[in-house]
Amino acid sequence: MKAIDRLVHAIERTGNPSALGLDARYSYLPQVLQAKYPADNGKNSEAIAEALRFFNHSLIDVLCEIVPCVKLQVAYYEMLGVPGMELFRDTLAYAKEKGMVSIADIKRNDIGATAEAYAEAYLAPNAPFSADFVTLNGYLGSDGILPFTKLCEENERGAFILVRTSNPSAGEFQDRVIDGRPLYEHVGEKVAEWGAPLRGDCGYSSVGAVVGATWPEEGKRLRLMLPHTFFLVPGYGAQGASADDLAGCFDEQGGGAIVNASRSLMCAYVKRKTQDFQSAAREEALRMRDDITSALKNRKRG
Amino acid sequence: MKAIDRLVHAIERTGNPSALGLDARYSYLPQVLQAKYPADNGKNSEAIAEALRFFNHSLIDVLCEIVPCVKLQVAYYEMLGVPGMELFRDTLAYAKEKGMVSIADIKRNDIGATAEAYAEAYLAPNAPFSADFVTLNGYLGSDGILPFTKLCEENERGAFILVRTSNPSAGEFQDRVIDGRPLYEHVGEKVAEWGAPLRGDCGYSSVGAVVGATWPEEGKRLRLMLPHTFFLVPGYGAQGASADDLAGCFDEQGGGAIVNASRSLMCAYVKRKTQDFQSAAREEALRMRDDITSALKNRKRG
Repeated sequence: MKAIDRLVHAIERTGNPSALGLDARYSYLPQVLQAKYPADNGKNSEAIAEALRFFNHSLIDVLCEIVPCVKLQVAYYEMLGVPGMELFRDTLAYAKEKGMVSIADIKRNDIGATAEAYAEAYLAPNAPFSADFVTLNGYLGSDGILPFTKLCEENERGAFILVRTSNPSAGEFQDRVIDGRPLYEHVGEKVAEWGAPLRGDCGYSSVGAVVGATWPEEGKRLRLMLPHTFFLVPGYGAQGASADDLAGCFDEQGGGAIVNASRSLMCAYVKRKTQDFQSAAREEALRMRDDITSALKNRKRG
Repeated sequence: MKAIDRLVHAIERTGNPSALGLDARYSYLPQVLQAKYPADNGKNSEAIAEALRFFNHSLIDVLCEIVPCVKLQVAYYEMLGVPGMELFRDTLAYAKEKGMVSIADIKRNDIGATAEAYAEAYLAPNAPFSADFVTLNGYLGSDGILPFTKLCEENERGAFILVRTSNPSAGEFQDRVIDGRPLYEHVGEKVAEWGAPLRGDCGYSSVGAVVGATWPEEGKRLRLMLPHTFFLVPGYGAQGASADDLAGCFDEQGGGAIVNASRSLMCAYVKRKTQDFQSAAREEALRMRDDITSALKNRKRG
């Protein structure tokens, strides 16, 4: 089954178009876990990785039935060196074991021969860091992307390519106007072109786009422009976007997008003033699901 | 001492503005090494990493006096999984031990908080994958870059940011015209702005640009436009660019740029029909040095 169909089925099964972002930060751990896994003032990467392994697995355990997808931001794992990359590999594998769709948020980009090597690392049948989807940056154009889409096609994997990012300075280059339209729209068009051969039964392609929730107008325009491109939508929660802000990234049936939340799920225990991070994450995941789905319903009525 | 001053000194010491690209591919090994380290048809990543460790170290040993710099393309190490990342870390450390300046060719890019994590991974005082320079992609704008330049400033490190890449489809987005000038020139201008606080005694900044050797006209124009931006120039040799093609990336004194070669040095033994890859790499490194420096001299006369 095509990766995008697996993702859409998982979203339909849980009724929840959201992803658990696992940004592996020791400082995100509740006190009780930091005490259990002391890290020598952050100097002991192996202890940190062990603590985060327990934290990641516990979050996956408690959320795998209600959240369809995990997104691992590799930067936090690279920061821990080799033990971090072991944790990255093992967390991806554990999510798969628990039936979750996985996104390796790597934003890789390079010339053709090198893009092939990256694709082998994440999307090949025996990839050492095996994920269902990766994220990519398209600045190098087609020959930096096609080695990935080739493996996606051969091996039922997918990719989300940066179109409009969620950060404050996203517009510095992405909004610059070329032939009357911003650069990110030109990139979006290319994403649709690259993805055309990978359209799944759900109507969307396994080659999707990253569209930040923090830019509601841009999201709406891209949704209309790219009817077969699935959106990975970061920026909800800790980055400041509300469910209403991102509703425009969804199609009229409430499909076509998945919203990522990292800090607001991992650290849900802070606001709830508890050390029981699992129950807090579960409550927050359900609250987030209801927040997004009711914003989508209200939009339909409106 | 600022990273760019260390690099410029190393280039002056060796009289050689070139970098040894260490793309860790088992297929690049001479038969004699493949026989010594059998890899079970490419399935044994640990054996491959061990073979490449011997190969990388041997190349560094024979070239460290005549080539000032190594560039490690991380994709080839990620492809080998955890043993590959150990090799990546250890090769960077070995190059440092042998007095070579190192570039981690990672082309990372992300939002601010995540960029901080990447910067910690490569540029912090105790970074697990410690390098003198990294390569970056600027599509996300300033707040994806400044966490890196901050650590560069604090910790005497540097970065090369993609401006005009060497691959055939580089122009798809990079050449699109904004306000009368191609996108890559706008990116180049931002690189100069980001690098302004990091100018070294050599007159160049520790924040440089990646400018492909395969685009001679673009290289010349960028050289004139960006007088304080040092260029990392890929594309020589196996990718097809000649010394004359890239001469325009250098300033009038023959400074301001470093040229990378990977396959043509690692696999120099193939053309020379020998298994003695060390002597072949040494011969090719000296030939490349002379090829570039005479192209620079001839240009001055012409």
